[in-house]
Amino acid sequence: MVASSEDSGPPPVVDAAVLAPGSAAAGTRARVVIVGAGFGGLACARKLNRTAADVLLLDPRGYHLFTPLLYQVATALLNPSDIAYPLRTVFRKSPNVRVWQTGVTGVDLGRQVVTVCPDQEIPYDYLVLATGSTENYYGNERLAEASIGLKSLEHATRLRNHVLACLERADHEEDPDERRALLTFVVAGGGPTGVEYAGALGELLKLVARKDFPTVKLEDARILLVEGMNRLLGTFSDRLGRYAERVLTKRGIEVRTKTLVRAADDRQVTLSDGTEVRTRTIVWTGGVRPEVPGVEPEPERSRSRRIRVDHFLRVPGAHRAYALGDAAGAEQGGEELPMLSAPAMQAGRYVARAILSDLMGERPSRPFSYFDKGTMATIGRNAGIAHLRGGLELTGFLGWLAWLFVHIWYLVGFRNRVMAMASWAWNYLRFDRPIRIILETAHDPLVSAPDVSSPDS
Amino acid sequence: MVASSEDSGPPPVVDAAVLAPGSAAAGTRARVVIVGAGFGGLACARKLNRTAADVLLLDPRGYHLFTPLLYQVATALLNPSDIAYPLRTVFRKSPNVRVWQTGVTGVDLGRQVVTVCPDQEIPYDYLVLATGSTENYYGNERLAEASIGLKSLEHATRLRNHVLACLERADHEEDPDERRALLTFVVAGGGPTGVEYAGALGELLKLVARKDFPTVKLEDARILLVEGMNRLLGTFSDRLGRYAERVLTKRGIEVRTKTLVRAADDRQVTLSDGTEVRTRTIVWTGGVRPEVPGVEPEPERSRSRRIRVDHFLRVPGAHRAYALGDAAGAEQGGEELPMLSAPAMQAGRYVARAILSDLMGERPSRPFSYFDKGTMATIGRNAGIAHLRGGLELTGFLGWLAWLFVHIWYLVGFRNRVMAMASWAWNYLRFDRPIRIILETAHDPLVSAPDVSSPDS
Repeated sequence: MVASSEDSGPPPVVDAAVLAPGSAAAGTRARVVIVGAGFGGLACARKLNRTAADVLLLDPRGYHLFTPLLYQVATALLNPSDIAYPLRTVFRKSPNVRVWQTGVTGVDLGRQVVTVCPDQEIPYDYLVLATGSTENYYGNERLAEASIGLKSLEHATRLRNHVLACLERADHEEDPDERRALLTFVVAGGGPTGVEYAGALGELLKLVARKDFPTVKLEDARILLVEGMNRLLGTFSDRLGRYAERVLTKRGIEVRTKTLVRAADDRQVTLSDGTEVRTRTIVWTGGVRPEVPGVEPEPERSRSRRIRVDHFLRVPGAHRAYALGDAAGAEQGGEELPMLSAPAMQAGRYVARAILSDLMGERPSRPFSYFDKGTMATIGRNAGIAHLRGGLELTGFLGWLAWLFVHIWYLVGFRNRVMAMASWAWNYLRFDRPIRIILETAHDPLVSAPDVSSPDS
Repeated sequence: MVASSEDSGPPPVVDAAVLAPGSAAAGTRARVVIVGAGFGGLACARKLNRTAADVLLLDPRGYHLFTPLLYQVATALLNPSDIAYPLRTVFRKSPNVRVWQTGVTGVDLGRQVVTVCPDQEIPYDYLVLATGSTENYYGNERLAEASIGLKSLEHATRLRNHVLACLERADHEEDPDERRALLTFVVAGGGPTGVEYAGALGELLKLVARKDFPTVKLEDARILLVEGMNRLLGTFSDRLGRYAERVLTKRGIEVRTKTLVRAADDRQVTLSDGTEVRTRTIVWTGGVRPEVPGVEPEPERSRSRRIRVDHFLRVPGAHRAYALGDAAGAEQGGEELPMLSAPAMQAGRYVARAILSDLMGERPSRPFSYFDKGTMATIGRNAGIAHLRGGLELTGFLGWLAWLFVHIWYLVGFRNRVMAMASWAWNYLRFDRPIRIILETAHDPLVSAPDVSSPDS
């Protein structure tokens, strides 16, 4: 092993023992490096658990995040730890899966090495790129600065703190224009994340904040949901999209379809129809782009910038390299698979099986085929939508129950499932959202509590 | 009311309606301003709930913090929201207590106004200063920079993240000296906080981290508890202090009494006996000092820098101004009351009663007298100490049970009590600490996840 204090020369290479020190046969077993522990990477690593492969799972965060419930953290219902599960704990009892919390700075498909920080190279026999996606601001830097995304736990807690700070400020703001700006919340993007967040924010303001901020005129609060297409939830049927719009409108959320956010700063938003809206809160759920580390030689990308893969999810031209999930654009029926957790999980398991087949000297069996069991979204209390395989569509309470069941079921880890369920039941019965503390003070001038000056030294 | 956009001239004065807009008789009722919502301020506000006074409770954080359990957040057992309770929720149903999340920048005892940020003046009829205490580094700036305190929720989560990041780093550190430094934890201060944190950290490393970091040689991990006096827990009896030292030592913690931290930076600590210890983690529980905003005219201070008060907890020379808790040094039997939650709570209730008496035109009844029911501390699993009124001392499992019962009982709010209890039971049965995620990335170069470079724009 090479000391990390060496700064000159080529990056040190981590030897096989690092990959599977618990394995007696280290060095003779195939080394599988999985980059990213989202739905795809985690499913792949789990499928390879207790097999003949030595697996190294690399992730810069060190935890698996149940992203479909981020909006519940952002609206103060769930704790961050309810939807984040430490990878080391997931694989605590695994003899052949090792976790390393680190970012990947580069991949060399020719030399078959992955570079991690600090500058170390990790050789692989098989590579699985499952690096996911991040917010896409389409190059609009000011929009990126002025808005808060909803793709990470940091964003979700920041958004929670920010919204609570807006209410706190509004309670003492004398300038009516500024007060209105503090109570105006613009959600850009009418996909599932935007719809779910807008619905939950409406509940937070109408059902909970009213009790804690009785002197804030919450009837002045506005939530604008802005969507460029002609209806919400473009990936669902027209009927379900219209239903969502109806429910949200009835609950007081202003839905603006066929409208884009043109410009934004920390004081206002300009919409494509020319409307200017004074606001202190812009939530961006308007687009994602694949997040791919620097790969040599650069792989071909699809129009959506996802890595192109063949029908076996292999990166063309590379040896034993797979890519899947949001990062890779597998095609099916002439169309790219959607950026959803379900195809990523299925692809992760498929790649694990493909690697095991290859290890046994078998030829890859069938091309990857995504089995769509259905998709669902929730619009708030007692209102959900679900599109199930076979064309069955659910709305209202039934749709909400279906959503609740599936999401709690998939929450990783028994403890989280129990705690999330308890928290929900509690909230449901009491119309409450218990996590209403403003904690972190970074990033947000609204949140930062003014220092209590102290003359003591 | 005055718009906050006015920057020149004297600070605007908030009129009475802001203090109690729900009150029909606003302006005619006595206005009590309580500064700080720790144990003392909160107890005072609760006692004044549903009385003839209009109460405004000012706190820069907006939540009451159950500080005795901060070390459990710092060692990944409890969520921040388990020990923080939003003040607005506490007084949700109160007709006469209003909460404002704001810092106080100054107090004018002559004009009877409190200045809050942004620059606004709040007049009071009665003032209660309950601003608590903060870490005391005795002027050692480098020590303050190099160490993490344990007095706030931000500190506790930062410490949790930092310790987890040390373990993560140690897993891949090739330099044996640096690895040892990453696994060396210095706790400065052998009072209850230091003892409880050191004990819980020992459990985190020995019982939990071992499972998640099987390849980190945790037998190399060191926890040093450094105390300047000749024994731990100076406020307890000699017997209990010795017992704590014995238990900690048996559990692998190195206790160094009669030793001070002389110097510290982010790489090492120099002790008063000349020993240099390489470490990346210094936890400072070595002293607190009262945190008092700028008060005009400046009140007299005791030797420990607490505000001097008379036997009725009044600030001498000021009209209707009280001070209590860690911020004020009430004397009893010739000695200052200890900086503990119990005397602060009793003082808060006493002051509330004194204000109510004064409102009724009655003379102050008796001087404040602290009734010491006992004190307790926990050293870890199944080991606690308690000194009860009457001289009864408990150690071991009984002491631990007593501690557990009292602390869960006092946790504010039903939900927190239930959740904390469930979390504890879970941890106790499974030897687990469930909140092991590294979330915030501010402040700590060890924690900051390296960016995953992305060539996409």
